[in-house]
Amino acid sequence: MSGGLLRWPGVELLTEPRGRGMTKQVLFAGADVDVRYFELEPGGWTPLEHHGHTHRVMVLRGRGACLVEDTVRPLAPQDLVFVPSWAWHQFRAAADAPLGFLCIVPAERDAGLAPGPADLVRLRAIPAVADFLSS
Amino acid sequence: MSGGLLRWPGVELLTEPRGRGMTKQVLFAGADVDVRYFELEPGGWTPLEHHGHTHRVMVLRGRGACLVEDTVRPLAPQDLVFVPSWAWHQFRAAADAPLGFLCIVPAERDAGLAPGPADLVRLRAIPAVADFLSS
Repeated sequence: MSGGLLRWPGVELLTEPRGRGMTKQVLFAGADVDVRYFELEPGGWTPLEHHGHTHRVMVLRGRGACLVEDTVRPLAPQDLVFVPSWAWHQFRAAADAPLGFLCIVPAERDAGLAPGPADLVRLRAIPAVADFLSS
Repeated sequence: MSGGLLRWPGVELLTEPRGRGMTKQVLFAGADVDVRYFELEPGGWTPLEHHGHTHRVMVLRGRGACLVEDTVRPLAPQDLVFVPSWAWHQFRAAADAPLGFLCIVPAERDAGLAPGPADLVRLRAIPAVADFLSS
């Protein structure tokens, strides 16, 4: 699964204006669970947010890193990431590589909330997180 | 995602005696949804079964085919398969290639049921299905 942006026949390519260089394709939508594929261009990112629902993520393509609560970890194909309820999280592609990943969510879910100033102060007090957020 | 059997750190490799040449790794298990990775050796297959819960499948590796209700289709990486409630289904690897796929199911689900003689007569009356089942 290398080459250009991964696409699926008949699946609409959506842009995600809350992120940067971020597209979304809904692969399955149903009564219980939605399976989405997100792809970030090199240097792209998902919005930093948290919410009550969880994410189950598998990287399919490229390279990057993610923040989950107060931990930053590098990402490569096949890596699994669980984002617990109300954990702050963000995915970032490497500067020189895209990052494509599946993200599985409950079909009924709450909207993501952006951090407030106090949240950002707390997150940026962690050196690895500060580096990640300014990368 | 080529090379040998796909593995994940800390994830147990389970055998599935109801299939042939079939392994299972549970990548995520949770309150709402389980994400499993199945891999079939060349010539391997999953049991022919049906059940009330659905499957959402994405092929990650290899080559093969699947039966869903009365339709047989070839499979390659990135292909998506939705198995509706109570659809007869089976996945088969090619004779000369493995077949690895993600399978997403509700955490609360019923057990699979094997076909009875009348089901098999009906399924085998469809030439493409008869070919698939004897491949």
